[in-house]
Amino acid sequence: MKPVKIGILGLGTVGGGVVNVLQRNASEIARRAGRGIQVTHASVRNLSKKRLCSTAGIVLSERPMDVVNNSDLEIVVELIGGTTRARELVLKAIANGKHVVTANKALIALHGNEIFEEAQKQGVIVAFEAAVAGGIPIIKAIREGLSGNRINWLAGIINGTTNFILTEMREKGREFNDVLKEAQALGYAEADPTFDVEGIDAAHKLTILTAIAFGVPLNFDAAYTEGITKIDREDVQYAEQFGYRIKHLGFARCSSKGVEIRVHPTLIPQSRLIANVNGVMNAVVVNGDAVGSTLFYGAGAGSEPTASSVVSDLVDVVRSLTVDPENRVPHLAFQPDAIHQKSKFLAIEEIETGFYLRMKANDQTGVLAKIATILSEAGISIDAVSQKPPMVENAKQNTIAILTHRVQEQQMNLAIKRIENLPEIIGKLTRIRVENLI
Amino acid sequence: MKPVKIGILGLGTVGGGVVNVLQRNASEIARRAGRGIQVTHASVRNLSKKRLCSTAGIVLSERPMDVVNNSDLEIVVELIGGTTRARELVLKAIANGKHVVTANKALIALHGNEIFEEAQKQGVIVAFEAAVAGGIPIIKAIREGLSGNRINWLAGIINGTTNFILTEMREKGREFNDVLKEAQALGYAEADPTFDVEGIDAAHKLTILTAIAFGVPLNFDAAYTEGITKIDREDVQYAEQFGYRIKHLGFARCSSKGVEIRVHPTLIPQSRLIANVNGVMNAVVVNGDAVGSTLFYGAGAGSEPTASSVVSDLVDVVRSLTVDPENRVPHLAFQPDAIHQKSKFLAIEEIETGFYLRMKANDQTGVLAKIATILSEAGISIDAVSQKPPMVENAKQNTIAILTHRVQEQQMNLAIKRIENLPEIIGKLTRIRVENLI
Repeated sequence: MKPVKIGILGLGTVGGGVVNVLQRNASEIARRAGRGIQVTHASVRNLSKKRLCSTAGIVLSERPMDVVNNSDLEIVVELIGGTTRARELVLKAIANGKHVVTANKALIALHGNEIFEEAQKQGVIVAFEAAVAGGIPIIKAIREGLSGNRINWLAGIINGTTNFILTEMREKGREFNDVLKEAQALGYAEADPTFDVEGIDAAHKLTILTAIAFGVPLNFDAAYTEGITKIDREDVQYAEQFGYRIKHLGFARCSSKGVEIRVHPTLIPQSRLIANVNGVMNAVVVNGDAVGSTLFYGAGAGSEPTASSVVSDLVDVVRSLTVDPENRVPHLAFQPDAIHQKSKFLAIEEIETGFYLRMKANDQTGVLAKIATILSEAGISIDAVSQKPPMVENAKQNTIAILTHRVQEQQMNLAIKRIENLPEIIGKLTRIRVENLI
Repeated sequence: MKPVKIGILGLGTVGGGVVNVLQRNASEIARRAGRGIQVTHASVRNLSKKRLCSTAGIVLSERPMDVVNNSDLEIVVELIGGTTRARELVLKAIANGKHVVTANKALIALHGNEIFEEAQKQGVIVAFEAAVAGGIPIIKAIREGLSGNRINWLAGIINGTTNFILTEMREKGREFNDVLKEAQALGYAEADPTFDVEGIDAAHKLTILTAIAFGVPLNFDAAYTEGITKIDREDVQYAEQFGYRIKHLGFARCSSKGVEIRVHPTLIPQSRLIANVNGVMNAVVVNGDAVGSTLFYGAGAGSEPTASSVVSDLVDVVRSLTVDPENRVPHLAFQPDAIHQKSKFLAIEEIETGFYLRMKANDQTGVLAKIATILSEAGISIDAVSQKPPMVENAKQNTIAILTHRVQEQQMNLAIKRIENLPEIIGKLTRIRVENLI
C-alpha cells in the first residue's frame, strides 16, 4: 500500500522530533501500521531558520493554511501552539475532511468541545495523546486501557518545570528563585515562566484528563489553579519531618458531590511511588474501582518524548484508515507478514550482564588477590567488593561479595569454575545478574 | 443499540470479577462503548459451587463447548486457564467467527502464533490484555501507545508472588521458605508454588511482551528462566550495601546480536523507580528510542484488577464492532451523547482535603493551646504538630507547623482567619493541601 501523506504545521522542537522519529523508525512504523507515513508538506514561521531535522523531500511553506488546504494530505499534525490561529487551522483541516493530530494542550482544554463536535460531524479523528504528559500514553490508558473501571480519582505530576524546581529545593535545600533561574538556563523553564510555575499548563492538561476520566465536558474554567511560587524551603523541610513530600499535583475526583479539578502544591506521603518521581519526569496515578491505583511514568516534555506520542497517534490513525476493524491493531503489534520469523534468540551464555558474586572462603585476605587475578585474566573488571560480612555466623569462614561490570555469561562461567577450584573457596559461588536499567 | 451478548468460560476468581465489574459499571461501560455488554451464558466446572458473583440472568452449563457453539454470542471470554482444553475452545470459538478475550498467559505464550493465525484468517479479534501484569494496560501501551518507538529493552516485575517474597525478605530480614509459607497462607502463592517461584509464570508473560515489543514470533522455548529459591537473605543484605535491590525481573532486549528473553533474580539500583515497587504489585519499564524509559505500575493479579483488563478488552472489541473506524474510540472516551453536560464542578471552597499549616508566633507555648481551640471549634482535628523548627533564624519568633485531617476548605478559611487574628501570630499563615492518595 502507498504511504499515507501527512502535513505538519510547525517544525520547532516537537515538529523536528516528529520528522526525525518518522525518518529513523520508518521501517518499524510501517511494520506496525501496515503503511508508511510520509511527511510531504510542512509549514514553518521562518523558511530561513535552521531546523532540528532534515527537510529533504518536504515542501516547506510559511503559509500553514496551504498545508491545511492541500488535498493530497490525509492527516494534518498541528504543532504551532497557541489557541487562536491553531483553532482556525484545526477547524479548517477538519472541515476539509482531514484527520488531525495535535500536541496542543491549551487548544484542547479551551476549544476541545467545539473541535470534537466538528470532528464527529465530519467523521474524522482528532488525536491528542501528546497534549498530556509528553511521551506517557496516559490518554490511551484512560480512554481504552482502563475503560472497564469507574474512575474514582486521578493525580498527576504533569509539569516537568515545577517538579524540577521542587526536587532541587528538597534535595539541595535551595530556594525557589534560585532554582527557577537554573531551570531557565537549562531550558526547562521559559523566559516568562508564568504558565508553568503558576500551574496554568498543568491545569490545561488536568482539564483534559478530567473529561476523559469522568465523562464530563472539557471545563477549564472550573479548574482551581495555584502555583508553587510561595513554597518556602522551610515548608519542604517540615513536610519531610511529617513523612510527606511537596509535589505540584493536578488532582481530579468525581464523587456524588460533584467534580473536582485542581492544581496546587500538595503534601503526599513519602512512601507513595509518585512521591519519588523526581526532576523533570512526569507521572499520573489513576484510581479505578476495579483496578485500584495504577501509575504511568515517563518524560513529560522534550522533542522526542513528545514526538513519541504524536507518531503513536499517527500510527493509530493509519491503522484506522485501513477500515478493517478486526485487525486494526495487529495481535502481535506488528502486521502478520512483518514479523521477523527468523530472528535469532540468544542463549543465556551469549548474553552480557553485570554480576554479583558471593562466596565463602577460609582465608579472605590471601584469596581476594587470587580471585581478582582470575577475573582480570577473564577480562572481567570489578565494580565493588564487600569484605564486611553483614552476618558472621562462623568466624573461621569469611564471606566475600563482588560486583562486576558487564561481561558475557560464558566468560563468567569459566571464571567462576576457576574460582571454585581455589583451595580456599568453600562450596559453590552464588551468582546474581545485575542490570542498571539505563 | 442492543447490548452485545457474551459468554464466559469459567466463573472462578477472574470470571466472578468480570461479572461483578460488568454489572456494577454497566452504565459507565455502555457510555464508553456505545452499547451495553451482557453476559448471557457461562460455563463452570461444578454447577453447585458457590460463586463470587450473582448469576441472575446467566444460563450456566458445565459444558464449555455449548457456550463456544452458541450462535447468539458475539464474544467468548476464556478464563479456565491451562493450555489443552483452553486451546481447543479458543480455536473452536474463532472457527465459529467469535471474538475472543482471554487472560490465559500460558495459552498465548505457547499457542499464540497458531491462535492469531486462525483469528487473522477468520477476521476476528483475540484480545489478551489481562494475560500480562493483571490490571496494568501494558499490552495496549506497547502495541499502541509507544508504537512510534523502536523498543530497545523492557524490564518487568510481572509476578506478584515472587515480589512479595523478596520484599518481605528485604524489609524484615526473613528467609525464603518462611515467607513462602506465609504467601501460601495469604493466598498469594499456590499450594504448588513452582510456576511462580521458578519463574515460569513470569516467562510466559515476558514471552508475550517480547513478541509485541520487537515484532518477533512468540517463542517461549527461547526464554531463560531462573527462580528465586536460591536467594539467601545474606544476598539481599549485600545488595543493599552495594546500593542495589534484588528483584525477580523479566528482561527482554533486541539488539544487532539477537533477542534476549530472560527471567532471573536481578540486582537493580535502588534509585530506580521500579526498585521501589514492593509487595504483590507489578511494574514494567519500557525503554523506547524516542520516549526514553517509561514505567507502568499496578496490581498484577487478583479478581477485579484482572477483570479490569478483561472488561477493557471487551469495550475495545465492542467499539470495533461498530465498524466506524473514525469514532471507534470517542474523543473524550465517552460517547458524545453520553457526556454528562450538566455535571456539577466544585469550587475550591467546597472541596475537602487535609491541610499543612505553618505560622510564626511570638509565644509558642501559650499560642498552641489557642490555635488548637480554634481548630477544634471549627471541627478540624489535628494529625500532627511540629514545634521543632528546622531552622531558627530569629530566636524570638517560633515556627509552628500543623498537619490536619480532612476538612472542607471554607471551614479551614474561617479557622485560618481566626488564627491570624490572634495577637501572638505574626503575619499570614502558609497553607498547603494534603492528599494521601489512597
